[in-house]
Amino acid sequence: MSETLKIVIAQINPMVGDIDANVEKVISMANQARDIHQAHLVLFPELTLTGYPPEDLLLRPSLELRINHALDYLQRNIKDVAVIVGCPLSKPLCNERTENNTKLKPEELYNAAVLISDGEICHRYYKQHLPNYQVFDEVRYFIPGPAEQNPIVFNLQGVDLAISICEDIWFSDTITRAKAAGAQLMLNLNASPYHQGKHRERQEALIKRFQESTMPIVYANMVGGQDELVFDGGSMVCNEKGEICFTAPFFTEGLFPFEFQNRLVEDKPEQTVQSKKLELVASSLPESGSELSEDAMLYQALTLGLKDYIEKNRFKGIVLGLSGGIDSALSLTIAVDALGADRVEAVMMPFHYTSQMSLEDAEAEAIALGVKYRVLPIADIYDAYINTLDPIFKDLKDNDKDTTRENLQARCRGVLLMALSNKLGHMVLTTGNKSEMAVGYATLYGDMIGGFNALKDVYKTKVFSLADYRNSLTSTEVIPQRVIDRPPSAELAPGQKDEDSLPPYSDLDKILEYYIEYDYSAQAIANEGFDLDTVKHIVRLVDLNEYKRSQSPIGVRVTRRGFGKDRRYPITSRWPAGD
Amino acid sequence: MSETLKIVIAQINPMVGDIDANVEKVISMANQARDIHQAHLVLFPELTLTGYPPEDLLLRPSLELRINHALDYLQRNIKDVAVIVGCPLSKPLCNERTENNTKLKPEELYNAAVLISDGEICHRYYKQHLPNYQVFDEVRYFIPGPAEQNPIVFNLQGVDLAISICEDIWFSDTITRAKAAGAQLMLNLNASPYHQGKHRERQEALIKRFQESTMPIVYANMVGGQDELVFDGGSMVCNEKGEICFTAPFFTEGLFPFEFQNRLVEDKPEQTVQSKKLELVASSLPESGSELSEDAMLYQALTLGLKDYIEKNRFKGIVLGLSGGIDSALSLTIAVDALGADRVEAVMMPFHYTSQMSLEDAEAEAIALGVKYRVLPIADIYDAYINTLDPIFKDLKDNDKDTTRENLQARCRGVLLMALSNKLGHMVLTTGNKSEMAVGYATLYGDMIGGFNALKDVYKTKVFSLADYRNSLTSTEVIPQRVIDRPPSAELAPGQKDEDSLPPYSDLDKILEYYIEYDYSAQAIANEGFDLDTVKHIVRLVDLNEYKRSQSPIGVRVTRRGFGKDRRYPITSRWPAGD
Repeated sequence: MSETLKIVIAQINPMVGDIDANVEKVISMANQARDIHQAHLVLFPELTLTGYPPEDLLLRPSLELRINHALDYLQRNIKDVAVIVGCPLSKPLCNERTENNTKLKPEELYNAAVLISDGEICHRYYKQHLPNYQVFDEVRYFIPGPAEQNPIVFNLQGVDLAISICEDIWFSDTITRAKAAGAQLMLNLNASPYHQGKHRERQEALIKRFQESTMPIVYANMVGGQDELVFDGGSMVCNEKGEICFTAPFFTEGLFPFEFQNRLVEDKPEQTVQSKKLELVASSLPESGSELSEDAMLYQALTLGLKDYIEKNRFKGIVLGLSGGIDSALSLTIAVDALGADRVEAVMMPFHYTSQMSLEDAEAEAIALGVKYRVLPIADIYDAYINTLDPIFKDLKDNDKDTTRENLQARCRGVLLMALSNKLGHMVLTTGNKSEMAVGYATLYGDMIGGFNALKDVYKTKVFSLADYRNSLTSTEVIPQRVIDRPPSAELAPGQKDEDSLPPYSDLDKILEYYIEYDYSAQAIANEGFDLDTVKHIVRLVDLNEYKRSQSPIGVRVTRRGFGKDRRYPITSRWPAGD
Repeated sequence: MSETLKIVIAQINPMVGDIDANVEKVISMANQARDIHQAHLVLFPELTLTGYPPEDLLLRPSLELRINHALDYLQRNIKDVAVIVGCPLSKPLCNERTENNTKLKPEELYNAAVLISDGEICHRYYKQHLPNYQVFDEVRYFIPGPAEQNPIVFNLQGVDLAISICEDIWFSDTITRAKAAGAQLMLNLNASPYHQGKHRERQEALIKRFQESTMPIVYANMVGGQDELVFDGGSMVCNEKGEICFTAPFFTEGLFPFEFQNRLVEDKPEQTVQSKKLELVASSLPESGSELSEDAMLYQALTLGLKDYIEKNRFKGIVLGLSGGIDSALSLTIAVDALGADRVEAVMMPFHYTSQMSLEDAEAEAIALGVKYRVLPIADIYDAYINTLDPIFKDLKDNDKDTTRENLQARCRGVLLMALSNKLGHMVLTTGNKSEMAVGYATLYGDMIGGFNALKDVYKTKVFSLADYRNSLTSTEVIPQRVIDRPPSAELAPGQKDEDSLPPYSDLDKILEYYIEYDYSAQAIANEGFDLDTVKHIVRLVDLNEYKRSQSPIGVRVTRRGFGKDRRYPITSRWPAGD
């Protein structure tokens, strides 16, 4: 007789801070998993109840009480199915719960997973590896789980199971200890944010852990946008042969069922010793989500990141400026794909240097996507500023190339957009790309205004390929081809082109990637085939513009190192740029 | 014969990232300490060579090489005196140095102190307690020193010494282990940032450590502003009686010499056993810095924080808007005290709602302090915006209380100030206080523009007392009394007063302090004597305005919890406000 364990991965999008809503979602998903899929066990992502990352909400005085209430409620309302949810647990709670609402000290908190079954908490696991690098600050809040308690194997339907949480699966020790303790299957709860190539890194980690333990692994990831992070889902199952035989769809919630069977096998035919062998029932697997191209993954990451920021913060819609350039054109398609055309409004704000082509293209983009479109010239506003400032500026030496006047144009536009935002209740979408944010080719309080920037972590060269990708989705192009083909220009001065003062974007972006994401020195970058003086100029610009980025809107992190929590540089610094 | 050890505390203001300059400062200070004070040992602050906090500069590829070069240079150039400096040390370097520039992994880095004497590194200590809370992220960069190596006692002039670094002195274990290992004197290197009341907390920590160890302690602190932190100096000596017998001046660099003597004493007169007793030579002590009132401390912290931001970032000067209100008036005095009147320019930007009194007071402030003063009315600019927007706004329901128009006024001013900043090369000083930043009574891209905000962490009630304090320093008032006495108003609508929509600042600030600095729940705050609905309204405003603060300029942290690295809340959150 074989023992069967039906597991369902619940790949969900929780709401940070809304424990009540997250609990209701857990119950609803658990009920569906039980009723539709006859699940024995439903596996939820890391910190299911608080969402991830809760940041300093973990220091709030009611945390312990609210988590206690949530767990009590789950114990009363989860019936005829077991669930594993992630939540913070304070140290006194580890082995027994208390009714006292003693104020939490952060050093007493675990990043935990609890197994709820038959109205009880039957098992607890405490995360052992706390990431405190890149965007992660877990040591600020949590203590690591004690190694001697971790992991305890528990049994469900005759199968010996172990739990691990996110970072734990990137190291060998947790799974090898679980194996030594007799576990047959590793369950791994994740809140693993997306970046380009991350899914492959996760696959490699799972394969490595399998090779070390020969243990199947169930990897449940979160999905959804949370400020600068986006969780891409793509939950996985690694079977007893070490094959990743199931990958859930990316960027969408869902329940994904499958079965493991425990068969009695004779280890050595000549002996009568029998042992259990856990096998995935191949026929029980749903179809994997479709594979996505790199551009498709990235585009969906940006869209979901923006959508969740708007929806979770309850904005009515988006307003953005269209310049006729490619950044705002791509931002518009992302906004429309995130919210629908009826919640997006576009504004063109021309000045003397705005070309006829830009006017035509901006309008064409708005029409192609069906969004409300307005044209608000800035010349009168600009002149009013100049008239006011003229008596002062007359006395001062004017630069040949007047940054003041260029910035002023950008700021006239910024203030107009903010007035529309105030009046319409729509969030301003910022449209600057990562290449610009890196070297500071953007105006504070001008084109840098806004609540969220979908392209903040997207290099200019990637903006081009995403524009092609988006155009490929429909029979008629939504971004005019000449917007993609023309040389990029901020149109803040006559005949201006970005590449007049910067190297070609194909070079610039590679230099930036080496510098920002891989911490290369200027010399090491030059060794990759770039002019050393150019490299030094670029990395110096990156260093000098930390003050601008420190006041920039947040945006979706999609690279190995984004600007934001991921990269913490002092503003005041005399580190030699590129060293 | 008694053994004498002459120690000099070097309370210095290093430059983050400028290892070369910091090394030259160490050599110059060490030479002075040797020549003027006949020092045997000069004690520098934590991370002397990089400055504090270096943040992600610690991940740069040349760090190890640059530190190696700096230490080599110090070994060659420090003569006839011993110095202890703080610096990051990579793990392979702990016991022997290598010429290889292997790329640092952050997990291999120690926060270290090295003793350089006679052209050698004679001793190394690795920080054991790594703060990773509040503004600190040390676990992101460092591993803790191994307990079994730490501390090793070393001998200088016959005295057995031990080293600890900053956070180590807030716990018992380092000093008690040093005592057990035979140390007679604890040297403590610090980069301890200021907040109100912090000096008393440090004194209490020293007294506790003395009581646990009966060991004298030399506490060397850093001084200077670094982005949102300001280090206040106030280095201390705790003698063998447990008395803090010397406190260095606050907010200024300096060398502070004193002597310890090792006397042979007979422990029990009836026996012949002799032991060494280390005693401070009271006559060797310089005079302590003068005690400062709480307001004087705070005012100096704000002034130095601003001054160092301007000087270290090499701005020519400051430009700020004067409204006739108290925040801008106090910001002006701080700017002038930081840089001198000739590097500060003030602008009054009146509109229809600006009172005659405000015009008079702004001018009086500028005259009293001797700064350049300009008046730039915004009505024409404002009208140009309204004319442009009118066709759109006509079709939309106008609110009775039109936030759009209020924000527009603030943004007209912001853009004017930025144009002046661009043209003059002066940094815009932001003037909003902590109470406003907390509840969001400030306009993004309007009055929130600027590079630095001296009052960012100063509650409105504190602004009043600082204004009184500053007026008390001169025979004639620099802030007109009626600016202090009149009810605060943003003057964005006729007859508007801040307290029309907010509780009195005396209540508001207490509510905010409980909520922000002590994590009280709304109910717990109400229990302190406030109306629960008012409290809930206020804490909800605090939560809702995280998005504004995320784009605000940095400013000096002066409370137990400032906005900035100190308080990391998600923007997207549905945590019930005040829970």
